[in-house]
Amino acid sequence: MICVLSGGTGTPKLIQGLKEVLDSEDLSIIVNTVENNYFSGVYVSGDIDVVMYTLADMINEEFWYGIKGDTFITNNFLEEIGCPEPLKIGDRDRATKIEKTIRLSEGYTLSEIVEIQKNNLNIKSKIIPMSDVDSDIKIVTDIGELDFHDFLIDKQCEPEVLDVVYSNVPPSNQLIQTIEESDMVILGPSNPITSIMPILSIEGVKEALKNKFVVAVSPIVGTEPVSGPAGKFMNALGYEISPIGIGEMYKDFVDYLVIDNQDKDLVDNLKNIVPNVGVTNIMMKSLDIKIDLAKFILDLKK
Amino acid sequence: MICVLSGGTGTPKLIQGLKEVLDSEDLSIIVNTVENNYFSGVYVSGDIDVVMYTLADMINEEFWYGIKGDTFITNNFLEEIGCPEPLKIGDRDRATKIEKTIRLSEGYTLSEIVEIQKNNLNIKSKIIPMSDVDSDIKIVTDIGELDFHDFLIDKQCEPEVLDVVYSNVPPSNQLIQTIEESDMVILGPSNPITSIMPILSIEGVKEALKNKFVVAVSPIVGTEPVSGPAGKFMNALGYEISPIGIGEMYKDFVDYLVIDNQDKDLVDNLKNIVPNVGVTNIMMKSLDIKIDLAKFILDLKK
Repeated sequence: MICVLSGGTGTPKLIQGLKEVLDSEDLSIIVNTVENNYFSGVYVSGDIDVVMYTLADMINEEFWYGIKGDTFITNNFLEEIGCPEPLKIGDRDRATKIEKTIRLSEGYTLSEIVEIQKNNLNIKSKIIPMSDVDSDIKIVTDIGELDFHDFLIDKQCEPEVLDVVYSNVPPSNQLIQTIEESDMVILGPSNPITSIMPILSIEGVKEALKNKFVVAVSPIVGTEPVSGPAGKFMNALGYEISPIGIGEMYKDFVDYLVIDNQDKDLVDNLKNIVPNVGVTNIMMKSLDIKIDLAKFILDLKK
Repeated sequence: MICVLSGGTGTPKLIQGLKEVLDSEDLSIIVNTVENNYFSGVYVSGDIDVVMYTLADMINEEFWYGIKGDTFITNNFLEEIGCPEPLKIGDRDRATKIEKTIRLSEGYTLSEIVEIQKNNLNIKSKIIPMSDVDSDIKIVTDIGELDFHDFLIDKQCEPEVLDVVYSNVPPSNQLIQTIEESDMVILGPSNPITSIMPILSIEGVKEALKNKFVVAVSPIVGTEPVSGPAGKFMNALGYEISPIGIGEMYKDFVDYLVIDNQDKDLVDNLKNIVPNVGVTNIMMKSLDIKIDLAKFILDLKK
């Protein structure tokens, strides 16, 4: 069984490749839930929904968010009546989020709800929220501890970052067991600070990874993060914005770091940081490349 | 200024007539809010929305609920994923309800939200929720006090009803003043037990009505309530299900009770109960009849 740690961008592309080369039952996705929250009255677990829609072949690949072909009638009418949504939610996508909201209010855990929803979508792979308890990211700065969104939007990432702290939340019931039962754990190419580290910081996860064959795929090619504010945070925390920085972040966990062909000059340096380095095309611009990368990763253990 | 006490069915039809014969600014609607509640994560103030959509010429006249021409994409997808909504909400209608939900969570009162929404829809008439505090109806029965929906659905209206009790909620800020400033108050042909009495039972309303010219339009023609469980409740509370019963219920408030031509034989009896009786066509099956009824009512004071 292959276990993937995933955020909402980057890793889902790799999941598209993995699902073509593995039996669905042999794939388990552990998903970041940090910063899950209510918007427009509905519970939004953004990364989980992206993973779920990806596995159900429903993902909108233009935005890597929401359902392909979805309409935005409610969202548009909210704008028309002068109440634009902070988060643009499609009509079908909203139904998924309403179900989560209703079931949460009825006392179901997020894990139970995701299980119900993925079964309804005929997804055979496991989707495991990292925790059933909501959590957030606090940014410790020279002007004090800030909420993630406060730092990002209100403060425009300007204060000096001293540390990034994740809430201490318990693992969901299946989290540790799923890692323990895996033949390989993949740290997907998602934002290391906002998606992967929140999972790794859950109690028991680092310990569970110790005896596992762990492959990380770099979310950075050259000196460019594929998306989001990863760079700013890495920089602030003293990591170089490059596969070297990624190696430093993940060095205690990984057996392999997979980097892009463009970064092959870094291999010698990286070998001083991580046990092994894999070099291939990690710019997943087509399904073929996604499948090739999936095969490349799975072959690392053979 | 004409003030109308309204529920979500019956009275909105009369409002369609009144808005054709009055300047919009001269019309104020005080709306029942009892049993307002959250469904599918959104705040549903059913009667207020029907009145608002009626005044904006947006009401779905087939169901007297929701927006005409609305789509049900979210609602349908919820059903598709195995989570049907207890209340069928259209996509545009949902936007209205989401705005209320968001603004309530931000600390706006229901009155303030309705004011914002009606202004956005270019409604010049006033729409005044009876209260900004949520309330419910309790049914005192031989087997104990029951929630309204529990009595209605779970218990199938079977227990013997001893009393109907409305929560004690304060009037919204503009409620009493609006009545006091009115030249005429109309108790619309809505369910007397679930729509009109909840408004009348708010502290100060009965007193404010004392010096007003009050016209009630019977929600019952013959022995048939126009809609809903009004009959059962009236019966249980000892009122005849007829314009006579309506006269008994409203006798302390009204100057005129308007009944249908079909019930003209009841006029002599009714004159022993209420001060005056108006007889006309109150079956509002066309806009012309609605306008004629509106004119008939407005002429009662001349």
